[in-house]
Amino acid sequence: MVICYTGKDFILNKNMRVLSGMQPSGNPHLGNYLGAMKQHIELQNQHEECFYFIANYHALTTVRDPEKLREMTFELAVDYLALGLDPQKSVFFRQSDVPEHTELAWILECITPMGMLERAHAWKDAVKKGKKESSVGLFNYPVLMAVDILMYHPHIVPVGKDQKQHVEIARDIAQRFNKTFGETFTLPEALIKENVATVPGIDGEKMSKSYGNTIDIFAPENILKKQVMSIITDSATVEEKKNLEKNIIFQLYSLLAKQEEIKKLREKFLNGGFGYGDSKKMLFEKIMDEFHTPREKREKLMQERNYVESVLSEGGKKAKALAIKTTEEVRKKVGLD
Amino acid sequence: MVICYTGKDFILNKNMRVLSGMQPSGNPHLGNYLGAMKQHIELQNQHEECFYFIANYHALTTVRDPEKLREMTFELAVDYLALGLDPQKSVFFRQSDVPEHTELAWILECITPMGMLERAHAWKDAVKKGKKESSVGLFNYPVLMAVDILMYHPHIVPVGKDQKQHVEIARDIAQRFNKTFGETFTLPEALIKENVATVPGIDGEKMSKSYGNTIDIFAPENILKKQVMSIITDSATVEEKKNLEKNIIFQLYSLLAKQEEIKKLREKFLNGGFGYGDSKKMLFEKIMDEFHTPREKREKLMQERNYVESVLSEGGKKAKALAIKTTEEVRKKVGLD
Repeated sequence: MVICYTGKDFILNKNMRVLSGMQPSGNPHLGNYLGAMKQHIELQNQHEECFYFIANYHALTTVRDPEKLREMTFELAVDYLALGLDPQKSVFFRQSDVPEHTELAWILECITPMGMLERAHAWKDAVKKGKKESSVGLFNYPVLMAVDILMYHPHIVPVGKDQKQHVEIARDIAQRFNKTFGETFTLPEALIKENVATVPGIDGEKMSKSYGNTIDIFAPENILKKQVMSIITDSATVEEKKNLEKNIIFQLYSLLAKQEEIKKLREKFLNGGFGYGDSKKMLFEKIMDEFHTPREKREKLMQERNYVESVLSEGGKKAKALAIKTTEEVRKKVGLD
Repeated sequence: MVICYTGKDFILNKNMRVLSGMQPSGNPHLGNYLGAMKQHIELQNQHEECFYFIANYHALTTVRDPEKLREMTFELAVDYLALGLDPQKSVFFRQSDVPEHTELAWILECITPMGMLERAHAWKDAVKKGKKESSVGLFNYPVLMAVDILMYHPHIVPVGKDQKQHVEIARDIAQRFNKTFGETFTLPEALIKENVATVPGIDGEKMSKSYGNTIDIFAPENILKKQVMSIITDSATVEEKKNLEKNIIFQLYSLLAKQEEIKKLREKFLNGGFGYGDSKKMLFEKIMDEFHTPREKREKLMQERNYVESVLSEGGKKAKALAIKTTEEVRKKVGLD
């Protein structure tokens, strides 16, 4: 596994605090899992302090339906708990349980130059796509994200490649604040797993909800099977030897299976006499196997709203205690106290 | 006194809640007093509920010195109390004692289109003046101002002409929210006293700290006198009849004196044999007379930090109770609860 950082000469150690946020969007897919969720859960065993939160303030930039937002927030909590997030090991909370994020956001907006946000890729993409109703919230997104990070003084922020610039913006804002008002914020490092940065969707493009090409890890079995069986292949016959280069089935299988299993599938494809239909079934079974326990656990947790709520609420209290400390220090340093 | 509103067919009544905010900037001048402060204090006797706050979150867009911000905040409180603001009649508070403002700001930013802020006059002026380091906070200023207003459901917002657009933005944002998430916010009306909208400075331009042409009502007597004596006049001799048209002395005197006194000064000017020096002394005495009690009271209050702090703190509690109510309702309506 290749890991890269925004900084140089950076060596991981277990004392480093990890933080990451996830925007609730419903129905996690294999790309979400392999690109982020899996790593989050692994990190809680490698680091003493992990902070993970559900970014529902951020979700307001796109969601206008309160019931949907509430439900997606709850389900994302369930998804993480089902996948193995351990609230004893990680501080797991809902962003809106710590409104201090928004106060720090206003303070940091006052030292963030417009140009910094105008240059943000995600914003430029939104403008390019002609979102004429682009909101101020969408524009300010990177400042709130900077706050989400800086508030808890983490050393490491595991993110996808597309979020690397946002971590750089957080560093930049932190440096500006430290320079103007005195040493306050830790400069975070982005942690990016390069080899799983892009998980192919069933059409070969990057797997993404917006492309409609996902394999949803918690979908009902028949739907999940249909998604896998819809993977696009070339027109090679059963008898023919298969190309491994642009073989989505092989790529996805390789991301889940053990070396030995991957080797076996490779041989089957290269020997010929093994059809895409059969290989899709193999992939489907691999997925069902990988997510067997989480899927069962998720079904159970969906009925335990009170328990899930209590987990988030407990996590929120721990996060808030730290957030209050940071905010009080900042208020004092800028003269708001 | 001419009063105008953004809406039509609007009749004042004492049950209407009044709200206004003042950014701490130090050393209030005659323009601040006649354009805003005086009216604020009068309104507390005409309306049952008045909310006045010191906008120190807003001040962060320009102030980088914590000690200065703290001191200007304290002094603005002292200024208002000295001028007659009665904390028994008005809810008088410091914006930063109600961090709910920043939470509501984030939520409303998510439904505010970029174009609305890009069209704000104050922002366009800042860009035109080439403030290359224009901050995101300065850009977002109208949203926080909308929050300051909408949070407390006031009917009337007394403002200067230059702030009329900001009240319109608040109305626009309120309408968007009400339309999307259901009836929540009261639409405020801007209250603008037309005849004192522009108080001339000692050079005849609008009196403004940034033009360096102010008469500072709480300055030490010798400085205040020097400011008045520096008023620019034409070159008419003592004997000559004076022009009243562009006569700054006459204009300022008219803003403070009774009809009878104004009539007398007019006659003196028109009769001739009365020099500008003498008229400046009359104006100076009028100012010292008008602010005699406030100046004494202010001197006393400057030594009573604990009392002033307790006034703001009490006001903050009252404001916060209402702000929590609004914020909780909004959180529920957008799905953050």
